[in-house]
Amino acid sequence: MPDPLRFSVEDLNDYIVRFFTRLGVSPTDAQTAARVILAADLRGVDSHGIIRLHSYYGSRLLNGTINPQTAIKVLRETPVTLALDGGNGLGQVVGEYAMRRCIEKARANAIGMVTVRCSNHYGIAGYYAMMALEHNLIGVSFTNSQPLVAPTYGRTRLLGTNPIAVAVPAGKHLPYVLDMATSIVPIGRIAVYEKMGQPVPLGWGLDENGVPTSDPHAIQNGGALFPLGGPAETRGYKGYGLSLLVDLFCGVLAGAAIGPEVGDPSNQIPGANVGHFFAAIDISAFRDPQEFQHEMDRYIELLKKAPKAVGEERIYIHGEKEFEMAEVNQREGIPLLPAVVDSLREAGALVGEPFDLQPLP
Amino acid sequence: MPDPLRFSVEDLNDYIVRFFTRLGVSPTDAQTAARVILAADLRGVDSHGIIRLHSYYGSRLLNGTINPQTAIKVLRETPVTLALDGGNGLGQVVGEYAMRRCIEKARANAIGMVTVRCSNHYGIAGYYAMMALEHNLIGVSFTNSQPLVAPTYGRTRLLGTNPIAVAVPAGKHLPYVLDMATSIVPIGRIAVYEKMGQPVPLGWGLDENGVPTSDPHAIQNGGALFPLGGPAETRGYKGYGLSLLVDLFCGVLAGAAIGPEVGDPSNQIPGANVGHFFAAIDISAFRDPQEFQHEMDRYIELLKKAPKAVGEERIYIHGEKEFEMAEVNQREGIPLLPAVVDSLREAGALVGEPFDLQPLP
Repeated sequence: MPDPLRFSVEDLNDYIVRFFTRLGVSPTDAQTAARVILAADLRGVDSHGIIRLHSYYGSRLLNGTINPQTAIKVLRETPVTLALDGGNGLGQVVGEYAMRRCIEKARANAIGMVTVRCSNHYGIAGYYAMMALEHNLIGVSFTNSQPLVAPTYGRTRLLGTNPIAVAVPAGKHLPYVLDMATSIVPIGRIAVYEKMGQPVPLGWGLDENGVPTSDPHAIQNGGALFPLGGPAETRGYKGYGLSLLVDLFCGVLAGAAIGPEVGDPSNQIPGANVGHFFAAIDISAFRDPQEFQHEMDRYIELLKKAPKAVGEERIYIHGEKEFEMAEVNQREGIPLLPAVVDSLREAGALVGEPFDLQPLP
Repeated sequence: MPDPLRFSVEDLNDYIVRFFTRLGVSPTDAQTAARVILAADLRGVDSHGIIRLHSYYGSRLLNGTINPQTAIKVLRETPVTLALDGGNGLGQVVGEYAMRRCIEKARANAIGMVTVRCSNHYGIAGYYAMMALEHNLIGVSFTNSQPLVAPTYGRTRLLGTNPIAVAVPAGKHLPYVLDMATSIVPIGRIAVYEKMGQPVPLGWGLDENGVPTSDPHAIQNGGALFPLGGPAETRGYKGYGLSLLVDLFCGVLAGAAIGPEVGDPSNQIPGANVGHFFAAIDISAFRDPQEFQHEMDRYIELLKKAPKAVGEERIYIHGEKEFEMAEVNQREGIPLLPAVVDSLREAGALVGEPFDLQPLP
């Protein structure tokens, strides 16, 4: 694998904003989308970062399956709840608006819960959950996504990798930020093994007959991913239950597409009709926030100081690795493989916004 | 294994009520505890049913580590939130009260969220989530529990099997009821393998060095359970994240004991200081409830009609097996192994409330 080139975060941000505005997105909305996309690259979740600029967003703005102008509609509202229609806009723009409204409600009335229908891929779920941290709230963010996962005892792709993200503030320590797909691995992980010509561990995916396989080609062609837990014997029905849960909130409750219909071009509603769910919780409704922070810190220390398994040196809290990675990438620049840079150049040419950035020396 | 004897649900209910009232519990509270305990046996979750009558409840009422009189205190309250102190009463009594208040808040103000500290083992988490179904609400119930699970890269028992239960009503179909431990299996499952003299599947538990083992004795003596997902390679850090999440809500937010301190006799607060978290959501705050029901039914049908893996005949929705089991057990009586009946006889003699029930013919 060739070495990655590093680009400054500011340069990439400027470029993404130019890219989106060229496609008819307003400068403010383009800034939002850039911020969410680069949050993924910063945190080392490359799969949801700038690598998707064209495939998830640019190409869909070009062919009209995403609206560049995001016209969000309020469907229902109470002091603690809000149901939104995202108007088939950019998922990041819709998502950030929804979570901001959710936070306002939690600050005013202890809890906020917001559903969104008619949205699109919104990047990393964790971004929205983490928005709550600045306000010392607990944040929650779910989204459904295009089908890749088979339900237990099934063999076709019916469920998305439907992530669950929850952010909980601590005191002097880094916050807890869980941001997990409910599939065992992302589909991109399988592609990486195929490119390397290596078998995947048994239990990650199944073939077209629903049989667990270590052949990445079979999983990608006619097969499907297993939910967290793998096959039934290793309790994959729990992961299936969590994936379905996310879709009951994001698809059914929000009134968006469900299961295999997410992103299906035969949908009556134009666009992917992705659904999201957000929640924010005011800690002070339950407990003195200072006591809460102190107890979070104590818990984190208790976990980190605990005896390690033989050969291991560190117990992690969720989000910790990503915060460390973001610090490095902010300082040293975001690493992009030459092939990714090439694809950005191609996309930039297509869109009429040449990717002209120079890597850092 | 000898055949189980079947006892009528009504007889067992009467007996449990007599057992608890003999120990100083009020008749109303005894009825509540009996109802929750038998809900487990009815649904086939024997591990949380009458088999625990003495070990989890009777013995602790006898030695004073659970208060027979449940004096619940309100710590904080808003129209949508409530923080309770369970007064070290029976977990079922505290839990049912908390979820009832949670439902009232959701009916009045769209959402209810309730935390509880100073409680005890409350039986199956799913019972409380399902209470929401009668009101056509979505119900959520978490509890922390005594430590049995090692965090990823750790080797000691720091986290409980901390279950997640969520109930979502459907229309003509059975509701979705997820009720899952965030450990890969319950500790009782390991004991069953040891009794049978068989190895457990690799990935269920680890030995005192933190190394995955198939030896049930090593897991039970100095070892620990893996979280859902197993070791890190199969994404056990997601299960660890979910287990910790439950404890951040039930332990830290509620102000109850955390991690290894749940049920620790050296706690400053008498009793196990178990924490619970409940939520209820009014569907109509987000979407027309009839549309919601229709879409739930459509989703359930879509999953059930999907192609099956080779050799499989049925895709299940969460809770479905348990509803079917409850119908059988309600009609035919609850099956108890002779050894369980013996243990009930012993406990009854100790408590002064002889277990005098006759099995059904």
